[in-house]
Amino acid sequence: MVYLSRLEHFNAAHKLYNPNWTEEKNKEVFGPCSNANWHGHNYELIVTVKGQPDPETGFVIDLKKLSILIREEIIEKVDHKNLNLDVPFMADKLASTENLVIEFWRILEPLISAISTAQLHCLKLYETPRNFVEYYGD
Amino acid sequence: MVYLSRLEHFNAAHKLYNPNWTEEKNKEVFGPCSNANWHGHNYELIVTVKGQPDPETGFVIDLKKLSILIREEIIEKVDHKNLNLDVPFMADKLASTENLVIEFWRILEPLISAISTAQLHCLKLYETPRNFVEYYGD
Amino acid sequence: MVYLSRLEHFNAAHKLYNPNWTEEKNKEVFGPCSNANWHGHNYELIVTVKGQPDPETGFVIDLKKLSILIREEIIEKVDHKNLNLDVPFMADKLASTENLVIEFWRILEPLISAISTAQLHCLKLYETPRNFVEYYGD
Amino acid sequence: MVYLSRLEHFNAAHKLYNPNWTEEKNKEVFGPCSNANWHGHNYELIVTVKGQPDPETGFVIDLKKLSILIREEIIEKVDHKNLNLDVPFMADKLASTENLVIEFWRILEPLISAISTAQLHCLKLYETPRNFVEYYGD
Amino acid sequence: MVYLSRLEHFNAAHKLYNPNWTEEKNKEVFGPCSNANWHGHNYELIVTVKGQPDPETGFVIDLKKLSILIREEIIEKVDHKNLNLDVPFMADKLASTENLVIEFWRILEPLISAISTAQLHCLKLYETPRNFVEYYGD
Amino acid sequence: MVYLSRLEHFNAAHKLYNPNWTEEKNKEVFGPCSNANWHGHNYELIVTVKGQPDPETGFVIDLKKLSILIREEIIEKVDHKNLNLDVPFMADKLASTENLVIEFWRILEPLISAISTAQLHCLKLYETPRNFVEYYGD
Repeated sequence: MVYLSRLEHFNAAHKLYNPNWTEEKNKEVFGPCSNANWHGHNYELIVTVKGQPDPETGFVIDLKKLSILIREEIIEKVDHKNLNLDVPFMADKLASTENLVIEFWRILEPLISAISTAQLHCLKLYETPRNFVEYYGD
Repeated sequence: MVYLSRLEHFNAAHKLYNPNWTEEKNKEVFGPCSNANWHGHNYELIVTVKGQPDPETGFVIDLKKLSILIREEIIEKVDHKNLNLDVPFMADKLASTENLVIEFWRILEPLISAISTAQLHCLKLYETPRNFVEYYGD
Repeated sequence: MVYLSRLEHFNAAHKLYNPNWTEEKNKEVFGPCSNANWHGHNYELIVTVKGQPDPETGFVIDLKKLSILIREEIIEKVDHKNLNLDVPFMADKLASTENLVIEFWRILEPLISAISTAQLHCLKLYETPRNFVEYYGD
Repeated sequence: MVYLSRLEHFNAAHKLYNPNWTEEKNKEVFGPCSNANWHGHNYELIVTVKGQPDPETGFVIDLKKLSILIREEIIEKVDHKNLNLDVPFMADKLASTENLVIEFWRILEPLISAISTAQLHCLKLYETPRNFVEYYGD
Repeated sequence: MVYLSRLEHFNAAHKLYNPNWTEEKNKEVFGPCSNANWHGHNYELIVTVKGQPDPETGFVIDLKKLSILIREEIIEKVDHKNLNLDVPFMADKLASTENLVIEFWRILEPLISAISTAQLHCLKLYETPRNFVEYYGD
Repeated sequence: MVYLSRLEHFNAAHKLYNPNWTEEKNKEVFGPCSNANWHGHNYELIVTVKGQPDPETGFVIDLKKLSILIREEIIEKVDHKNLNLDVPFMADKLASTENLVIEFWRILEPLISAISTAQLHCLKLYETPRNFVEYYGD
């Protein structure tokens, strides 16, 4: 079993804001991240799949195909977008890095299984070089 | 003459949009950067000053004071903000990296001269690790 | 279960030196790291916690609180310090990266459980960009 | 159990090419990576071992010895080399990052056990900052 | 005058070899870089242009156009190529980083002037993170 | 004229302390950097030379020779050392990054001229990724 990873990036705006709370409670809990007019990040996404290298190609998965799949299914939907307003799969969710990575998993996991014998193993999402999350699907 | 640099960072939302143009012209010129609902970046700002090291301290400038000045005068005004809506000194300007760095210079140049014998030499502003600008004040 | 990480840094002096050994044996085993007058590093510490995102905040843990806790309980005790002389919890221990990370775990593990439903999962400590350790508590 | 890692690097040429296939099939599957005249990379290899810190040294393994072992057994055999033509242990294998990391494991695993009580835990090999693999020996 | 930079990357094979010299002299001067079967690198190219920001766009140059120009005129000609064998403009030259950056300048300088009022200011080419060159056209 | 750079690194302890001042004044001016028991850094030094590429080698300077010269003349004297106590050329000077880079220049400038037709152009010294100095010899 070899683990193969691909890094892609996107730039997006968001805010952390719970619509069931008052403005004051939002400010208290989320601080400057709740700024009404948004802020944003250069996100970096590392997609890790696992599998046996194919004896004919030496590949766990065709990295070109994996890169295209990530870009078409994730990056195009979030890059240069507002994560709270422009992204259907985040519509009713708090735009935290934790929630983003769970939704990315739901999209990517079946699609990777469909194009290869490899399986999605981990998603790692950097909001900044100092803050990041990892998700293994359970 | 020694050149001393300090790196600080901020996270902000913006869009590239000329209000004198139609929606179509904005989309044509600025592409996804004109997205109505904004996008954002992790900006990195490097402030370089030049001067003679003080024989008593070995310092061109007190880095602690420089860092506080950058944070109070620049970072607090742009961090977790919308560069088009929340930042008075960008109010009537296109929120490009080029225009940002010129405005940062206007703010920092006299303040650095006021707290030290060093002079501001260069501002370098990364919008992403792949796109950045430098400004030397002329 | 989502894994959330925060990076902090500190600058410290240390030496690798076993007081039960002769000068020669220390030099033989630890080489230049045993230099009597110390050397030092820019350490980077990544703290990873695991838990379920809170439905009201989207957070596994409040990153601001986690960052403050790391800084108050770890960084303030080791930053701009001598790890052999100035740090009570390292007093009778060899100041290796391995021993540091184990002591950091002993301090942080109960404190993180006390401020959240998340659990400490891993500490990763870079001594240099080329040498680093990870510890999972067992 | 503490996990200790060491990063080393090498520069090499290679191509992805299956000699049992036609030129066309190679181009179709491997794209520009099948270029007849080779291309190359700055590879980065992270070797992670696991073990108990020795009470007399504070070390899981002597990093100097680990670094020398990696350089003598791996780096000298692949640095400034052609991975398809110059490296005996890759002679009859596709020069993919997946296959490289498996062969590195076969070489390093017994040698690390021979010089220490630590065990090889993971090899991580970056072909580029965006493409990398990990292998745990099974 | 603002200086705007764009980073692109490519992966290529090369060797350092003077055909007028004996094998021994090549080995003596170029060491492992003269390996007959090539080696390779992940090159990073930073293109810096200078000019006045356009009042209508805030841009020194349209970064999208600059990026496309760099990719079409430079990257496509060197990426996944052998710099000694596959690149017409390097045909009769030693494939050193110094010579590469001079040839890139000859190609890019007139093309950048043709698509904008900005001027090429500097090319910075990383062969590795530890070895790099800069060229200003004279 | 091409500018060629080489990066080397060293790990050292130091403190900022003016022996003509009281303990209180040192603490007031230098803060935690004046800690009596030292602190330390992973320093990174970039040496830039300028010259014409030699038509027979394509080199401004032989990078291998430059690297050996930097290591023998600078790195061996400061790596795993205390900059205040162990380094003769810093003996009577404040161990600031500014003063270090000036002393490095005095050592390297004549030696580079002696081994090549290239000239030392700039020294860039990182104390941390956020604090660094540059010196051009005047």
